[in-house]
This record gives sequence, C-alpha cells and structure tokens, in this order.
Amino acid sequence: MFNKQTYIDRRNQLRSQFNSGILLFIGNDESGMNYEDNTYRFRQDSTFLYYFGINRPGLYAIMDVENGLDFIYGDDFTIDSIVWMGSQPTIKEMAFDFGIDKTGSISDFLKKIKSQPLASINYLPPYRPEHRLKLMEILGINLSEISTRISIPFIIAVGEQRNVKSEEEIKEIDYAVSITAEMHQAAMRYALPGMTEAQVAAKVHEVALAAGGDISFPTIATINGQTLHNHYHGNTLKKGQLFLLDAGYETPMGYAGDMSSTFPVSKTFTDRQKEIYQITLAAHNDAIEMLKPNVNFREVHLQVARIIFDGLKEMGFTKGNTDEAITNGAHALFFPCGTGHLMGLDVHDMENLGEQYVGYCGMPKSKQFGLKSLRLGRELKPGFVLTIEPGIYFIPELIDLWQQTGTNKEYVNFDKVNEYRNFGGIRNEEDVLITSNGHRILGKPLAKTIEDVEAERAKAYR
Amino acid sequence: MFNKQTYIDRRNQLRSQFNSGILLFIGNDESGMNYEDNTYRFRQDSTFLYYFGINRPGLYAIMDVENGLDFIYGDDFTIDSIVWMGSQPTIKEMAFDFGIDKTGSISDFLKKIKSQPLASINYLPPYRPEHRLKLMEILGINLSEISTRISIPFIIAVGEQRNVKSEEEIKEIDYAVSITAEMHQAAMRYALPGMTEAQVAAKVHEVALAAGGDISFPTIATINGQTLHNHYHGNTLKKGQLFLLDAGYETPMGYAGDMSSTFPVSKTFTDRQKEIYQITLAAHNDAIEMLKPNVNFREVHLQVARIIFDGLKEMGFTKGNTDEAITNGAHALFFPCGTGHLMGLDVHDMENLGEQYVGYCGMPKSKQFGLKSLRLGRELKPGFVLTIEPGIYFIPELIDLWQQTGTNKEYVNFDKVNEYRNFGGIRNEEDVLITSNGHRILGKPLAKTIEDVEAERAKAYR
Repeated sequence: MFNKQTYIDRRNQLRSQFNSGILLFIGNDESGMNYEDNTYRFRQDSTFLYYFGINRPGLYAIMDVENGLDFIYGDDFTIDSIVWMGSQPTIKEMAFDFGIDKTGSISDFLKKIKSQPLASINYLPPYRPEHRLKLMEILGINLSEISTRISIPFIIAVGEQRNVKSEEEIKEIDYAVSITAEMHQAAMRYALPGMTEAQVAAKVHEVALAAGGDISFPTIATINGQTLHNHYHGNTLKKGQLFLLDAGYETPMGYAGDMSSTFPVSKTFTDRQKEIYQITLAAHNDAIEMLKPNVNFREVHLQVARIIFDGLKEMGFTKGNTDEAITNGAHALFFPCGTGHLMGLDVHDMENLGEQYVGYCGMPKSKQFGLKSLRLGRELKPGFVLTIEPGIYFIPELIDLWQQTGTNKEYVNFDKVNEYRNFGGIRNEEDVLITSNGHRILGKPLAKTIEDVEAERAKAYR
Repeated sequence: MFNKQTYIDRRNQLRSQFNSGILLFIGNDESGMNYEDNTYRFRQDSTFLYYFGINRPGLYAIMDVENGLDFIYGDDFTIDSIVWMGSQPTIKEMAFDFGIDKTGSISDFLKKIKSQPLASINYLPPYRPEHRLKLMEILGINLSEISTRISIPFIIAVGEQRNVKSEEEIKEIDYAVSITAEMHQAAMRYALPGMTEAQVAAKVHEVALAAGGDISFPTIATINGQTLHNHYHGNTLKKGQLFLLDAGYETPMGYAGDMSSTFPVSKTFTDRQKEIYQITLAAHNDAIEMLKPNVNFREVHLQVARIIFDGLKEMGFTKGNTDEAITNGAHALFFPCGTGHLMGLDVHDMENLGEQYVGYCGMPKSKQFGLKSLRLGRELKPGFVLTIEPGIYFIPELIDLWQQTGTNKEYVNFDKVNEYRNFGGIRNEEDVLITSNGHRILGKPLAKTIEDVEAERAKAYR
C-alpha cells in the first residue's frame, strides 16, 4: 500500500469535483468457479483499490459529499472464520490504514444507503453480475434501470484522476513492467521445438507467481500470433515457426505490466520473418518517438498504420496512395487492432468505465474496421501510461473475407498476400510514460532488435 | 472428451428418473476480474460438462422428459469474432460431437423456456451471481423466489449418478492424481530455506499448466499449515519449519486431483515433527484400510479421530476416555476438519448441489464443532472417489478459545498443548477409489513415509 495520505488526497480530489450527493463504491466479491467456495483468485475492484486500498472481498464504501465524510462498510470475520483463516484485522483496523475512521457493518450500510434519495446516489458501471444483483438489492431498482442510472460525472471524474499517474504509482508500474520483462526473457530462454505452448505459458506464469503477484491478464503464448484473442495453448512448437507472447505482471497492489514479444522457435529468424519483423519494429520505434504531451494518440496510431502500409508496399503486399489507403482502412487487413491503450491498475485502464469517456474524452469512436479497435484517441498528458504495440498479422479468415468482398482491392495485392497466408503474426509491445516534455519507456529493457532476440534465443539452445 | 455414446447414456439414465417436465442446465459464462473482458480462465459448470460436454461459455441445455429430446442453445460466433479468435466450430458441430442434433440460438431458447409452465421446469442450485440473474430473466421470477423453486429430485438424481464413476472417468481421475503427485514431488525437490511460499506455489502451478490443464483449487503452500484456509504466500521459508502443500490438478476435461503433503523446510524432520507426523500417517493408513463398499464414511472419520486422540494421549496432549472424548468432540482441537470428501469433476464433488444431498443422502449433518465440517457421511459404494486427509494442527486461536471457555478441559492438557502452540500443522492426503470389494489408491504414489519424504527433500539440497 501507499502512504495513508495518498488515499486521503485522492478522495479529497475526487470529492472536490462534486457539490452534493453520495458516491457509492462497490467492492468485488469472491468469484466461484465450479462451486461457490472454489474461488478464482480474488481481484478487488480497481477504483475501490485506488480510493480505499483495502484488498478484501465483501466491502462497500461511500463518500458523502456534503458532509465531507468517507465510510467503509463490511462484516468482520467471526471467531469461527478466524480458526480457519488465522487472525485477521478488523474492518476498522484496515480502514484506519487508509485514513478512514468511519466504518460499519453491511447492515449499517443498507440502513445508510436506503436513507438516501435515489437520485443523489452516484455509481459507476457494473461489470460483474454480482454488481448488478447488489445494485438491484441496495437501491431497490430493476435490472433494466441499472444502466440508465449510471453517473457520467462520476465516470469522468474518476477517469481524469486515475489517468494521471503519480510518482509513487509510476514506480509501482515500473516494477510491474520489469517483472513482465523477466517473464518474456524466461520464455525466450526456455522455448524449444517439441514443447507445447502450455509449457512456455506455464514458465511465464511461474515467474509472475514467484514474484508474489499474478498475471495481469490471460497469457497469449502461441504459434498462431495472427489470432489476436488466442488463449489456446495446445499446439506443439516446431522449427521455423514464430512464437508470439503477450503477457504481463500484476503487482500485489494491483498495478499492471503488459508486453508482447515475438521470437523464432528456431535459434534464428528466417529472412522472410526478418523482413516483416523489421517493419513492425520500425513502426514501434517511430510510435514511441512521437509520444509527448498534447499529441493526439489517434495521430500516433495513423502514423503506425502508414509505416506498416509503406513497409508492406515495398515488399509488394500493398499498393496505391498511402494516405488514401489509410483513410479507407486498408492497413487493417494486416493491423486490425490499435497501437496501444492506457494502463495502470487495469491492464486496459478503466475499460470498465467505458473507453469513450476514459480514452476518448467523451468523443465518439470511429466505426471503421481497424480504427474502431483503437482504445485511446485523445491528447496525451504528462502522467499517462500507455502501451505501444504495433503488429503485422496474416489472418487467413480476414484475407479470404476481403478478397471475396473486394474490400480495399485498390490497395492490396491479394496474390502476394496469399503467399504469406500461413506466416502468422508479429507484435512487439512496451509500456511508456508520458513525461512533462516527452516520454520514458518503463521497466527493464526487453530484447526487441533481431540481434538481441536471437542472442536470447541462443541461450535456450545452449 | 469421452465417446459420444457416454454422453447419450448419461442423459438417458438421468431422463429415466423423471416422468415429466423440463430439466434445465445453465452453462457458465466468462467471469471478468477487473473489467468484463479481462477474464479469469473459463470454467464450465461441471453438471453441464457431465451431460453435454461442451466447454464453451454462454450455453443453455434442456432435457424435455416427455418427448425424450435434448437441446443445446447458444449463439454462434460472428465473422467479426472469427477474425479475432480464428475459425470456431458452430454450436451445431459441437453438439453433434456429444450426440445432440437439436440446437438453437439464445433467442430460440428464450422462446422455448417461456412457453413451458413454470412448475414444470427443474433447475439446480445457482452458485454464481450470473446464474441468479439468468434465472430471474428466463423464468420471470424474483431473486427471493429462486431458492424456493430449486428441484430437490433433480439434485438427487444428478448426485446419485455422478457419485458413481465409470471406468473411463476413473482413468481420467487417475491421470489427474498422477499429475497432482508430480506437482507435490516438484515442490519437495525444489523448496529451500530463503525462498518465499509464492516461489514454491509458482513451481507447483507451473507443473499443472505445463501438463495442459490447470490447478483444481487455489493452492495452499504454507509454513502455517495450522491455518486451514490459507492462501497467503508471502512468508519466507526458514530451517526447522514444516511446509504444508495442498494442491491438485484439473484435466482439460475438468476432472480433479487433490493431494496434501507436509515436509520439513530443512533436509530432515526434527524428532518433534516426526512424532506428530507418525500419528497422522497412522491415521491416514488406517482410514484407507477401512475403505470398502457399505462402510459409512462417518465411521472412518471417527476412527481417524480416535487414532489421533490416542496418539496425542500417548504424548501427553490429551487424557481421559477416548470414546467419551470423541463423542464430546475433543479431538477437534487438533483435527477440526473432515477426513475426506468426494471428488470428481469438482474437487469437492458437487458441493454446489449441497453436501446434505450428495454426501449425506439427505440426512442432516452434525452441528458439533469438528464433525460439522465432515463433507461425507454416508455409506460408500463401488465407483465413489474420495480423499483421505487426516491432519494434526496446533491452532493458537482455537487453543486460546478452548482454554478460556474450558471447552473439553477434561480431555485436554492445555499446558502441554501450549508448548506446541507454534508447531504448525501436518496433513497427508491421497485420492482413493471404492472398488467392488475394497479400494484402490489412485495416481502415482506420493512420498509419505518419513524416509520417503526425506529422500525427496535430499534432492532439493543436492
């Protein structure tokens, strides 16, 4: 945990954005897998962690704006529980550590919340089914009413505040990224032909757990890097293939790292692999160079799209005027996703609050295939932390779809593309802080040049 | 997956228990951690897996008893999803593999279920918040009505069927237990003073993931074995301590293994540790010897309690008449939990259906401290798979509580007990099949004698 004063200051800053009303924070519960008591690891709600710090299931918190009072509610463990779980601090003791002296039981909470006029209660979008059940119960509203009563001012205030990371948060994220780099390094030094993807994913997971935290999102560890949402780990690695790893560490406090690396299953890249790899790396490095305050991240993304399109044009995959092609979204055949996203207590920071508010300042997102997947499209500010992750993917299903429908056929040489339809995918990803006059790449450096990656791979083959 | 006919036979057997009505099966959804799309690993509902096999979120299934027809409902992936996730089989294709040719969309499902009289619809107890939301939506009932409408005949029919494991299930569980034994062996050969509990837990987790499955429940890896529900992994191992590991493997099909082992952080046990260890091991071996059809597991548990009480009496911890002491629950100061539980597709098999029905044939459980934690109290039948896990624990909070209240003071020498209040806890656990005339210990053997455990530990110190 950070210093008690950090949490007091955070709450004061948030409260100062409101003139009246109640801000309601619903902590997360345990989540059962195949029965209630066989639980996934507990993950507290990030906004709850940010303002109230306590990493325990079954809590509510309230900020009473007019009275300037903050409350944490939860039920203490019974002596029965303590026999099974060992001595546990009380809610009062835990709340004290985060600068709160007003606590109560769940029954106290229900009395308090039910005494407030419904219109005065501000809550954030529910993202777990338990949140919906709780909102129905505590506010006495129907399921269909929940979404209509979400507080947009509350979303915006939290989003703007959490988007700007403090020095102590940056230090924590920096550490998360360093462990993340170790996870990737472990994979590069371990993977060999004949292993399964699961074995490599297991090694990566071990590094995260051994550091005392956990993975920050489900690991992608695959020889099918072109499949973007791919959590299948059943394939066996073969020489000549590319291996794409997208994995990150979450610190015990909840802060995330998120990196991607792509390396040959063989000791070295093939010439074909090198050519595509160099394009993504050029896009990656150029994107990072552009990062500074007041730059709109949409422009960074479009620059990445141009570099990828031009690089592929030199190789004969694409053709025609680059700017026109980008306007028409032709690059999205190879790069259908975004260049990056905000990161903090969530790996996609505050995705639960809605990208439109957090990543787009309330402006509408593009609906074009490719650009619509960009999660961040606003001007950058000092203290923002974001990922940079351009990639080039040969997605057989997408190639076939575009070829059949003639999509962007003015800009794509489908014959050449089809020669690479089994190529796979390449992505590099790093985490970057926006500073007062530029940027800083966070964490320990991860091998990303061809030479550095091959040097790591040589260690697996020793 | 098993052979298609297995699933057809299972459904026919279940259907034959009913004369009319609809049996409703709610598949599990993805569970978001800190936002909806950052998910825990997907875990399908075990009863859904047992009868319908499909390991995918967002499904419903129905058995229409009168018509003898089975249906699976779910929405196919869109082309958009396929671009991100690769080619995916349709619901129809997946259902076919499990012997079902009647499929439909979620909208078809809603039409079908809403056309049925509410009283004809049988459902099992919901154990996830999403189940409650779904029952409210699809049946048009209130939250408070859900529990009153749960079908006890449905629970009993599923419980009796799933309790008796088939040959192919036993083979799968045997494999799960063998990987579980490898997880424990890896820990014994790895743990050293100076490591954190998290490092050992990470190694254990790696073995499970590398085998292509996952852990079957949250790993207990601790130097505080006396704390029974302990998932904290932040302590550093020190010479002279005991390390207790309770961990299991879940196969990709969903079958569980569950073992516990206790080993010295040092290369060898101390004499003090050996004495207590020998008592738990004697109880363990005696319990396994007793296992055969028609034995009531409550008797096995009480025999374990007697062995523990008598062993501790010889050492001076307990006193008085053993049978009276057991009747009064005096053993529970050292052994407050149960000797074992059923295991199958769930590590505590069908805990979501209610222990009273599955583990107690509908008979009420004891309310006595200790005995009330026994999850299985019925006569054993061939095909049952269960754990055997006696233990001895010195729980400071419990010792203090009993001493303050004078609980069972006729049977406990608190002065002697307090000399061991920082001893920790010891448990061994194996998984056993009830055969037609006895029992068979499942999986690869795990080191459990003092000699065998010390031989494994020597490998960590090499």
